[in-house]
Amino acid sequence: MGAYRYATGTWIYGTVGDRYILSGYRQGLPIEERVKKISQIEGISGIEMIYPADFEPGVQKVAEIVKECGLDCAIVGVDLTGDPTWQYGTFSSPDLEVRSRAVELTMKTIEAADALGAPAINIWPGEDGYDYPFQVDYRQNWERFKKCVIEVASQRPDKKICLEYKLREPRARSLISTADSAGLMCSEIGLSNVGVTIDVGHALQAKENIAESLSLLSRLGVLFHVHLNDNYGDWDDDMMVGSVRLIEFLEMVYYLKTLSYDGWLSIDVYPYREDPAQVVEGSIKVLEKMDGVLERFGLDKISSSLDKGSAIPLLSQLLDAIIRE
Amino acid sequence: MGAYRYATGTWIYGTVGDRYILSGYRQGLPIEERVKKISQIEGISGIEMIYPADFEPGVQKVAEIVKECGLDCAIVGVDLTGDPTWQYGTFSSPDLEVRSRAVELTMKTIEAADALGAPAINIWPGEDGYDYPFQVDYRQNWERFKKCVIEVASQRPDKKICLEYKLREPRARSLISTADSAGLMCSEIGLSNVGVTIDVGHALQAKENIAESLSLLSRLGVLFHVHLNDNYGDWDDDMMVGSVRLIEFLEMVYYLKTLSYDGWLSIDVYPYREDPAQVVEGSIKVLEKMDGVLERFGLDKISSSLDKGSAIPLLSQLLDAIIRE
Amino acid sequence: MGAYRYATGTWIYGTVGDRYILSGYRQGLPIEERVKKISQIEGISGIEMIYPADFEPGVQKVAEIVKECGLDCAIVGVDLTGDPTWQYGTFSSPDLEVRSRAVELTMKTIEAADALGAPAINIWPGEDGYDYPFQVDYRQNWERFKKCVIEVASQRPDKKICLEYKLREPRARSLISTADSAGLMCSEIGLSNVGVTIDVGHALQAKENIAESLSLLSRLGVLFHVHLNDNYGDWDDDMMVGSVRLIEFLEMVYYLKTLSYDGWLSIDVYPYREDPAQVVEGSIKVLEKMDGVLERFGLDKISSSLDKGSAIPLLSQLLDAIIRE
Amino acid sequence: MGAYRYATGTWIYGTVGDRYILSGYRQGLPIEERVKKISQIEGISGIEMIYPADFEPGVQKVAEIVKECGLDCAIVGVDLTGDPTWQYGTFSSPDLEVRSRAVELTMKTIEAADALGAPAINIWPGEDGYDYPFQVDYRQNWERFKKCVIEVASQRPDKKICLEYKLREPRARSLISTADSAGLMCSEIGLSNVGVTIDVGHALQAKENIAESLSLLSRLGVLFHVHLNDNYGDWDDDMMVGSVRLIEFLEMVYYLKTLSYDGWLSIDVYPYREDPAQVVEGSIKVLEKMDGVLERFGLDKISSSLDKGSAIPLLSQLLDAIIRE
Repeated sequence: MGAYRYATGTWIYGTVGDRYILSGYRQGLPIEERVKKISQIEGISGIEMIYPADFEPGVQKVAEIVKECGLDCAIVGVDLTGDPTWQYGTFSSPDLEVRSRAVELTMKTIEAADALGAPAINIWPGEDGYDYPFQVDYRQNWERFKKCVIEVASQRPDKKICLEYKLREPRARSLISTADSAGLMCSEIGLSNVGVTIDVGHALQAKENIAESLSLLSRLGVLFHVHLNDNYGDWDDDMMVGSVRLIEFLEMVYYLKTLSYDGWLSIDVYPYREDPAQVVEGSIKVLEKMDGVLERFGLDKISSSLDKGSAIPLLSQLLDAIIRE
Repeated sequence: MGAYRYATGTWIYGTVGDRYILSGYRQGLPIEERVKKISQIEGISGIEMIYPADFEPGVQKVAEIVKECGLDCAIVGVDLTGDPTWQYGTFSSPDLEVRSRAVELTMKTIEAADALGAPAINIWPGEDGYDYPFQVDYRQNWERFKKCVIEVASQRPDKKICLEYKLREPRARSLISTADSAGLMCSEIGLSNVGVTIDVGHALQAKENIAESLSLLSRLGVLFHVHLNDNYGDWDDDMMVGSVRLIEFLEMVYYLKTLSYDGWLSIDVYPYREDPAQVVEGSIKVLEKMDGVLERFGLDKISSSLDKGSAIPLLSQLLDAIIRE
Repeated sequence: MGAYRYATGTWIYGTVGDRYILSGYRQGLPIEERVKKISQIEGISGIEMIYPADFEPGVQKVAEIVKECGLDCAIVGVDLTGDPTWQYGTFSSPDLEVRSRAVELTMKTIEAADALGAPAINIWPGEDGYDYPFQVDYRQNWERFKKCVIEVASQRPDKKICLEYKLREPRARSLISTADSAGLMCSEIGLSNVGVTIDVGHALQAKENIAESLSLLSRLGVLFHVHLNDNYGDWDDDMMVGSVRLIEFLEMVYYLKTLSYDGWLSIDVYPYREDPAQVVEGSIKVLEKMDGVLERFGLDKISSSLDKGSAIPLLSQLLDAIIRE
Repeated sequence: MGAYRYATGTWIYGTVGDRYILSGYRQGLPIEERVKKISQIEGISGIEMIYPADFEPGVQKVAEIVKECGLDCAIVGVDLTGDPTWQYGTFSSPDLEVRSRAVELTMKTIEAADALGAPAINIWPGEDGYDYPFQVDYRQNWERFKKCVIEVASQRPDKKICLEYKLREPRARSLISTADSAGLMCSEIGLSNVGVTIDVGHALQAKENIAESLSLLSRLGVLFHVHLNDNYGDWDDDMMVGSVRLIEFLEMVYYLKTLSYDGWLSIDVYPYREDPAQVVEGSIKVLEKMDGVLERFGLDKISSSLDKGSAIPLLSQLLDAIIRE
């Protein structure tokens, strides 16, 4: 019970490193242990998995493990960044062979999702973009990417295909970079099973207001999945929710409620030096409290106070409501 | 005769101030003198005007002045920021009266454009947005804005209606914030005379690559007008072109050429402490040189070298071509 | 009576504008009314004034007004930005005449501070810096600036001379740009009455952590004055405290307490479109609550939990303590 | 021949990865091959090495290899990031054992530098800092760090000890974050053999102007070593010099010349997807051309044109000089 269904990703128990410690700050656990440990995190009822990395024991075997641990599989992500094959792009690659392999891997990811009963797959095209000026043909990149998504999505209209945008990293500039960019891609694709995963840390990195981006995606009918974490506003720090920002997260929860978002809230953190369970539990606790504060404050009281010119009267009341005496 | 038709805005000879020197670093000149001085800037053949501020002597009178000075009027901008009336928004305002007045002012701007023979008007909705979380209803803001643009544009299908996006300033967050956001607004509006003014400094402030944004807008058929200036990447500094960046501008010129952009290039600088003519002339000189370098280098040589993986071989050749021994 | 002595600046009731509305979103009030209104803001016992702008009725007259209203004058700032004279710098100007006038104005500011019983003056050298590469001689700028501060401070060892740093605005780059930069300037000056005003919004704009900057300035013995406001992390938005960030402000209050800061906390906001009193009162309320939360939580409990490796256990406890159920 | 002595780091031929491809975009070469390949890069006469990673064959053996390849060893960096041991800091660690091991490793690095005839070692304390608020005791961190540097430097007054600052990465906030911060640390240490390595990409990431930072460090007598690369202004992209910025690099070269910097210029790039030699050669070519342009333009002509108010006349002349017709 709790206001939302919370999930988290298997990568929190993976080998967590950076370009300076490629060997990892911490070594990854076998998938069995990852699933088990995630099932023991307070508040978590769902899991987000990565194909193919998490499926070494076999798709059916993994499905059993997840089931045994009492978790729902919220979504399965296709790994389009973890291999040098993808270094110059996947769906947008000028190389037909690379595009074909990316599509093929994505179709297999859908099959894995089928096996786990997951309603959706996640496509985060981190390598699609560029680093330098004069590197790619922007238009062709966009069109090739779109075509591949259509190829995937039209084969499986029963599965939600979620595109996750990010301003940058690992490429210096990403193809699908902002909520508007992702929304535009979905509009051009025009298939009802293609939507967006909003990672709220990516929104903050792109100088977006989370709530406004939720509103935009909802308006377009493409608000499919939500990744949660916090950061300092310039980089995808993947920190515990609430460790930097406050009011923007409160506003986010308000929008999740008023937009009747009923999907998963997936805690997508990257605990380089922290205990993964603590970061996830701390994030959930903050979100649940925000939900409670809003319920008591009254959603109607908020909605009727927007668009009144100065933001201060409502904001002061909300600060009163959320910060203890 | 140069590669492009260059214009600049009357504001370069206006009262240039900031929040610390509201009285201005320099006092504005009467419109007659502004037009005359602009006509004397080397390389300039067009002028960008603001309604109503620039039309105090009367629309016809101003039309005569512009004609006498041998300038074409590239575009007329409607001033939707220069009065406290607009402080909480114009086309997106929750106040019907404010929206009506904004639409009315825009229609008059179109009439002024008619009188000057300008094919387009510019709408930069600087006050449409918000400063604080929980201030506005994002969805309503978007819909109200869209409706007003439709109201304006559908009355005058013969006039180009250009929407200029900007990440922020004066509001902490703008309604039309990125090239994608502007493109999405145009797509939803769906009128062929509604397009985008890209201010390349706004693109840089939003962490966009100028050329990619040009490509996007061209793809959508909404690349209507271009404002040129340079900055450090975090704020709309409105500096002389070439004073910070190099290769991104070279790429921009390459795209202007390959996309066959045949509109105006309007030098939109804000010379707080500089001689306006010098800033404009310096900007044009850099752009013209870039054009020459590209012509000699060969556009085909560039287009056939994109999408090759590493960007370095082409980039090194281009750096060789543009930087003197 | 709360945990701190709070002040605010007369500019909150001044003509508040920006480069688009030079005429102001709101017209400034006469100084008598400003002082009176400020004295009526709940929680405020001090005022921060600007010389010469606030002293038109005469220094003695203004001193009487402030006294009658029951306010202490926390500090008097010398206005080194509000006139085109200063556009290329003040204490760092290559023009001896300009430097002399800046020093002279500063000495008069000290006299005004004397008359009001203010222990300190504030020097925010907003125009000292540059906009373009190749504009100034960096070394000479630094040395000239330093020499002028020494000239001022050595004449009045009884008065605190506070240097306020800021990354940028109005210049694209400021001479005294970060806490480290200000600390270095003070170290080189080496006079015990020369210290720093930290504007925490400037710290955030410079990507600093407020608490770390407080710690640095305290270590150097130059933590003289504090300006409080909030922002989105990229610009000096001068917003109500608590409207964006949470934990960094909680940490700030913790450091103010453990460093035994006993100076003023001056709410330095710039309410373009908001009621000034509401913004100040809202800011104070948040700060007072943070103080209470920390008192109950226990400062010792915090200090003994720092430097333990992972930040999460303490952070989670603090989030528990500050956010309501 | 060439205006400067150029070096590059062995890491350009290392395993280059990121947090998504920990296994590397490209596999590292054995040190023998790295040295050989670097010696074949046009324009390179020096090498920057990392201890202990580059010394697996033994210090003497490596010294021979470097000598045989005709390279000078410019500097040896101590690796204080490449192992989870250092994840919570090295010289600033609250753990005495960790600090001792970091000092010990640094002393061994000095011995390796001795063996290679390198006049300097580089300390880039990437793990010293923090990620979350309330994580570390800022003051103790600073003091512990300082004490360790003193311990190292005072034992070997004949060796240059270079501190390399960086705003962030891998920690969200670094202890030695800006040129001012590094300068302050050196000032407090007060040993003539302790100075600064400026990585100009780190300067840009910290929103510094490179030339101003050079000027600052030179003024303090701590401009010891220079790392060169380019980026978009928000992150340490480690790109080829000239791929984004132009004029700031020209100004940098002007300052290197006028400050009579006679140390190494070390091309510190991180070619994830590029041929390392091409990136280094391209960078050197741009720098050499800038040097030539400045020589022909005349350094005196520049120095006598600074501090004249408007930057535009000189800037326009320089743009004329550097960009081809």
